Amino acid sequence: MVEREIHRPTLDERAGECARERTLSATVAYDGAPFAGFAKQPGQATVQGELEHALELLFRRPVDVVCAGRTDAGVHARGQVVSFDVDAAELRDRTLFALRRSLNALTNDGIVVRSVDERPRGFSARFDAVEREYRYFLATGEVPPVFTDRTAWFVGPSLDVAAMEEGAAHLIGEHDFKSFCMAASAVGKPTCRSVSEISLASETIMGEPHQVITVRGNAFLHSMVRTIVGTLAMVGRGQRTPGWVAEVLAARDRQAAGENAPARGLVFWEVTY
Amino acid sequence: MVEREIHRPTLDERAGECARERTLSATVAYDGAPFAGFAKQPGQATVQGELEHALELLFRRPVDVVCAGRTDAGVHARGQVVSFDVDAAELRDRTLFALRRSLNALTNDGIVVRSVDERPRGFSARFDAVEREYRYFLATGEVPPVFTDRTAWFVGPSLDVAAMEEGAAHLIGEHDFKSFCMAASAVGKPTCRSVSEISLASETIMGEPHQVITVRGNAFLHSMVRTIVGTLAMVGRGQRTPGWVAEVLAARDRQAAGENAPARGLVFWEVTY
Repeated sequence: MVEREIHRPTLDERAGECARERTLSATVAYDGAPFAGFAKQPGQATVQGELEHALELLFRRPVDVVCAGRTDAGVHARGQVVSFDVDAAELRDRTLFALRRSLNALTNDGIVVRSVDERPRGFSARFDAVEREYRYFLATGEVPPVFTDRTAWFVGPSLDVAAMEEGAAHLIGEHDFKSFCMAASAVGKPTCRSVSEISLASETIMGEPHQVITVRGNAFLHSMVRTIVGTLAMVGRGQRTPGWVAEVLAARDRQAAGENAPARGLVFWEVTY
Repeated sequence: MVEREIHRPTLDERAGECARERTLSATVAYDGAPFAGFAKQPGQATVQGELEHALELLFRRPVDVVCAGRTDAGVHARGQVVSFDVDAAELRDRTLFALRRSLNALTNDGIVVRSVDERPRGFSARFDAVEREYRYFLATGEVPPVFTDRTAWFVGPSLDVAAMEEGAAHLIGEHDFKSFCMAASAVGKPTCRSVSEISLASETIMGEPHQVITVRGNAFLHSMVRTIVGTLAMVGRGQRTPGWVAEVLAARDRQAAGENAPARGLVFWEVTY
């Protein structure tokens, strides 16, 4: 019976101790162009800074948010998710709908809170994410696009999509993606990740042809999606063969891969919990 | 035989007298946001000003362009067409492709010359146009769109599209569109126009729902498309019945119609010659 007396807190109880009573999440879209990335940095406009500032104005205390995935400067989001904890008393009679409206009123125009949802207590936007989806937009017309210039990388009309698909197939599954990780971030950290989908689809956006590359996986290394896209673009342009992608993966060396595709074409699309 | 001696120039000969040897056209896309409209205005950034400046740099003389349709400040284009005349000698060994490239290098980033084409001598982008097409983008999600904020009017999710289609049907055909013309522009000018199509289509753009209103006709009065859209939006929101659109048309009075829809949702899409 001693074990019972030395009380070991359950997961729920621990959440209660270190967190507040209710855990909420916000699904957030943003135009990455005006921000120095998601993560808060002193003296810079960041998405996290904007969101935490709005939450502080609402709750009259500092509120920390946890995000599903940090995005670099210039990278966009359609379905970034952030979680944060509040006391029931702090919510007063605010509905989640009213909270969304207030957050949208208090944040920069480039940020849109698409929904605010109640989550199980202790929910983490980061650690509870099962799968993350990114989409990368390539503009493939004869001339640069006017209406997607902020959200697509102009690569021109002569991409070999079949070769890109063949190259992408080498990356599906669980692998050491060290070659696709910004070198400084990879030092001393695990670089194995599981990629479940890399697919290409033609999409006409406001009259202009695009190829949209969808990349899904459990988690991603720093700049991994942009390096995958930059590498596949070399295959699509005929500068490398599809088989070269397997060599890049096997090299476990960032120098082996193609250059990072520009930030502006990348959208953090969706998170599955 | 006197008639033959008093030489009456044919249309071709007249073109030869007042114009240069070759007539070219450029199909131009632009983001309207940074411009004070298409038409040249002293001291303001305009699309015409940018294009004529680029042509002057290329040909080392002032070059006047004629456009298929003037667009107001903030209105975009995907298929604006401009025509201009040049001497064969001025073209030197430049191909039309090289001319397009030079124009793109010499104009503002918000302007993209999609093609440069040779036209019959004396061709006018304005007077030879048979039909003009505009598209108006309504963002119909729960929250404002992040990626089409510059190119769509956010109206929210509860538009009655069937009612808008019923209202639009009253405008098809040849009518006096005086109610749909900016009052000052209509004074003493003919206001009959022929509208061949007004259709609505759902379109997902970068993940967000939109309704796209396509309006086709031979020619349009000043702010006519935006007034049509503003009027149909009142029907879509349930503020007016579809039958009210027929009353607006019959009134021949701008005060009878709805407000102009915002410039940013309108794109001058295509011209048929």
